[in-house]
Amino acid sequence: MYKSLNMRKKVRLSIIGSEVANGFILDKNTNFFAQELFSMGYEVEESRIIRDDEEAILQAWKDLSTNGDLIISCGGLGPTDDDLTVDLLARYLGVDIVYDSHAEKKLRVFFKRRGRTNTTLERALRQVRIPEGCQALKNSVGLAPGIFTRQIPLIALPGFPDEIKAIWPEAKKLIQEFSFQQQETRIVPVWGIGESTLFNKLKLDDDIEIGVHALPIGSRLFLRSKENSSQSLDNAEDAIRQDFASQMVEDPLARVIDHLIEKKQTIATVESCTGGLIAKLITDQPGVSKIFKGSVVSYANEIKENIVAVNPQSLAEHGAVSEQVAVQMARGGLENLKTDICIATTGVAGPGGGSKQKPVGTCYLAIALRESQQVYVARLYFPLGRDRFRVAVAHSSFLALYQSQIFFSTAKDWATTEFGKLFKRVNL
Amino acid sequence: MYKSLNMRKKVRLSIIGSEVANGFILDKNTNFFAQELFSMGYEVEESRIIRDDEEAILQAWKDLSTNGDLIISCGGLGPTDDDLTVDLLARYLGVDIVYDSHAEKKLRVFFKRRGRTNTTLERALRQVRIPEGCQALKNSVGLAPGIFTRQIPLIALPGFPDEIKAIWPEAKKLIQEFSFQQQETRIVPVWGIGESTLFNKLKLDDDIEIGVHALPIGSRLFLRSKENSSQSLDNAEDAIRQDFASQMVEDPLARVIDHLIEKKQTIATVESCTGGLIAKLITDQPGVSKIFKGSVVSYANEIKENIVAVNPQSLAEHGAVSEQVAVQMARGGLENLKTDICIATTGVAGPGGGSKQKPVGTCYLAIALRESQQVYVARLYFPLGRDRFRVAVAHSSFLALYQSQIFFSTAKDWATTEFGKLFKRVNL
Repeated sequence: MYKSLNMRKKVRLSIIGSEVANGFILDKNTNFFAQELFSMGYEVEESRIIRDDEEAILQAWKDLSTNGDLIISCGGLGPTDDDLTVDLLARYLGVDIVYDSHAEKKLRVFFKRRGRTNTTLERALRQVRIPEGCQALKNSVGLAPGIFTRQIPLIALPGFPDEIKAIWPEAKKLIQEFSFQQQETRIVPVWGIGESTLFNKLKLDDDIEIGVHALPIGSRLFLRSKENSSQSLDNAEDAIRQDFASQMVEDPLARVIDHLIEKKQTIATVESCTGGLIAKLITDQPGVSKIFKGSVVSYANEIKENIVAVNPQSLAEHGAVSEQVAVQMARGGLENLKTDICIATTGVAGPGGGSKQKPVGTCYLAIALRESQQVYVARLYFPLGRDRFRVAVAHSSFLALYQSQIFFSTAKDWATTEFGKLFKRVNL
Repeated sequence: MYKSLNMRKKVRLSIIGSEVANGFILDKNTNFFAQELFSMGYEVEESRIIRDDEEAILQAWKDLSTNGDLIISCGGLGPTDDDLTVDLLARYLGVDIVYDSHAEKKLRVFFKRRGRTNTTLERALRQVRIPEGCQALKNSVGLAPGIFTRQIPLIALPGFPDEIKAIWPEAKKLIQEFSFQQQETRIVPVWGIGESTLFNKLKLDDDIEIGVHALPIGSRLFLRSKENSSQSLDNAEDAIRQDFASQMVEDPLARVIDHLIEKKQTIATVESCTGGLIAKLITDQPGVSKIFKGSVVSYANEIKENIVAVNPQSLAEHGAVSEQVAVQMARGGLENLKTDICIATTGVAGPGGGSKQKPVGTCYLAIALRESQQVYVARLYFPLGRDRFRVAVAHSSFLALYQSQIFFSTAKDWATTEFGKLFKRVNL
C-alpha cells in the first residue's frame, strides 16, 4: 500500500539456508531486519528465503541488486561446505579470496588456546575468508566476520541471530551512509471495530496512505504521507482520534494490569467458552500474582453450580449460554474468589452446539465490579472460527475494562460509545 | 542437505504483506508451508516476502512461475484497498472478476444477521470476488475463499494462519495432482527427550538424512534416504522405535482425549504456574465437554486453600512450589471438581521468584487418578524462559497421561522408562 517514492533506493533481504526452506527453522531474521530498518525510517522492499544452492543464490543477488538497491544477506558464512556466501560473492565480484587479518588472528588464538589440530584449523579458516577488496565487519560473538561490498552493494551477515545482533551496529552505520529517503510513520491501533466498518468511517486526506495489521479485535493502522508531511500525519491522527479515542491504545490488557497494580485491586475469571484462555493471557505476563488471584474454568454446568454458585434453575430456564448465567458466573467469581473484579464468559465456540437463537460465535461476556457494585454484560457475536472467537472474546473483556475503568471517568460516558453501548448494566 | 533431484517441479511461495516486510508481523506461514510440503515429500525452493505493491507482486509471480513451478501465494485476500491479489490475478490471467457464489451467499447471511448497512456490505463483498474461471477453495473460518488457477499454476490463500489451515486440506489435494517427483519421507515424533540427548542415542545408517523440528518437549524427525529406499527408512524407524516406542506418538493430548471419551472418564486441572494454559490447550479441541469438566487456576495461595482444599500448613512448611502442595492440588481437584483424573501444576515460571533450591524453571507436576487410587508426582526442570517453560510443563502432563494410561498396560512398566522414572507414586 505504501507507494514507493521515485528515485528511492531500497533494502532487500536474502535469507540463505535450506533448513529454513525445509521448515526446520522459523526465519526470525527477516522480522529483525524489517523492524530495525522500519524504525530507522527505511523499508524492506522484499525478502527472499533461498536454499543453499549456488545458482539460486547468485540469481537472487542479481535480481535483488537491480537499481542499486542494498542487499542484506544472512546465512552461508561458516566453516562447512554448504556455507557458500564468500565463494559466491568473490565469483560475483570477479575477485580473489583472502583471509581477513583480524578474524584470522582471533581464530588462531582461539585454536591455540583450545589445543586444536591443524586439520581442524585448516577447515575453520574457511570462515575468516573474505573476497578481496571487501570490508570485514567485526563479529564479537562468533568467528566469521560480516562482509560489506559497496560494489553491489551488499552486506553479508551470519545466520545466527546473536551474531547478527553483534555485527548490527556497524552494519547500521553503513546503511545510514546510503542516501535512502526516510519516511515518517505513525502507528495507530484501533481496537474493537472490524476492518471494513473502520474503513467506512475513516475520512482521511488523499495524501495519507494506510497500512493495516489485524489486532485480535480491531486494526493497527500505519500512516504515512505521500508528501512526507508531518502536519498531514498530525491531522490524520487527530481525525481518527475524534472518532476512536477510547479505542486507541497499544495494549488494553497491559494497561489494565498496570491500572490494577496501581489501584491495588485484584481480578479473577470464570470462563466457560474461553476455557482458560483469559487466565492464560493474563498470566503470560510475569509479576501478575499481585493482582491476579485465579480462575474457575466452569466448562461443565455442575462446576458452574458447585464452585461459582450459579442457580441450577437459571441454567435450566435460560441455558448455560445466557445473560442470566453470565451475570451469575461473574458474581459468583467475585464472591468465591474474593476479588475486586471478575470476568465471566459463556458462549458457543463451535463448530458444534449452535442454534438459531444462539448461533456458533455467540458469547455473553459479564464483568462484575465490586467498587461500583455493578455487572456489565454484553451479548457479542464473533463467527470467526473457534480459535479466533475465543481470542476475540478474551480481548473484548480487556477492552471493556480499559474503557470503563481507565479511559472514561464515568460508566455513563462509556455507555455512549459504540462498544460501550453493547453492555447492559445490572446491580451486583 | 537434501539435494534437489533433476527435472523436479518445485513449489515457490509468495508471502504478500507490507506488514510483514515492515516487521509488524512475523511471517510464520513460510514455515507452515515448508513443513507441510516437506512432510508430503516436496520441497520449497524459495519464499518471497513482498510488499502490497502491484508491480512487485506481478513481477514476483512472473519470476516464481518460471519452469511451470507451482506458486503458493498468501495474503492480499480481503476487503480493503491494499488487498490486491484478486485484481492482480485477474490482470495476470486477462480475465474478468466475478463473485464466488458460495462465499457471497455466506457473506450476505453473515451481514443480515449482524444488521449491517449496505455500504459496509458493498465493501465486504470485495473479499468474495475471484477471477473468472478460477476455482474457489472454501474457507470455513473466514469470508474470503482461497483461489486456484491451473494456468500459472498458483494457489492463493488468505494471510491468517487459521484460515490457511482451514483451506489447506483442499489445497493439498490440488498440490498432489501435480507430477512432482516425491521423495519418501518418514515423520517420526519423539516426545520427552532433548535434541542432543536424542542424537547421542541415535545410531542410523549413513544412507539416512535427518531433519529436525522442535516439539514442545522433544523433536519431530524427518527421515529421508539418499537412495530413496523404503527398506532403509523402515530400518531407521525400527531402530528408533526400539529405544523410544512409548514416546513416538503424533499428538499425546489428542490420544488422551480420545481415550477418555472411549472410557467415559472425566478430567480437570488445577493450575498454578501454567495459569490456565492446560485448560486452554484441552479446550482448543472442539467437543471436549464430554470429558473436560473444568479447572481451577489457583494462582493465589488463598485459592489453593479455599477452592481445592490445600492444607495451609503444607503451604507454610513446604512452600507453594512443592511436592506436597502439588499432590494436594491434584487430590483437591479430583474431589471438588468430581472427575476421574486431575492434573495439577505448581512451579516457578520466572523471570522472578527463583531460589537456589527451586530455581526458575522448576515445576512439580501431579496427576491424581481415581481408578488406580494413586497420584503420580514429578519434579521437572525446564529453564527455557517463561513461555516455553509453561508449554513444556503442559505437554509433560499430556505425555505422562499418554504413557501411563494408554501405551503401557501397567504403571509398573511405565516406571521403567526414563520419563516414567521421574514420577513418584503416592496413594490417593
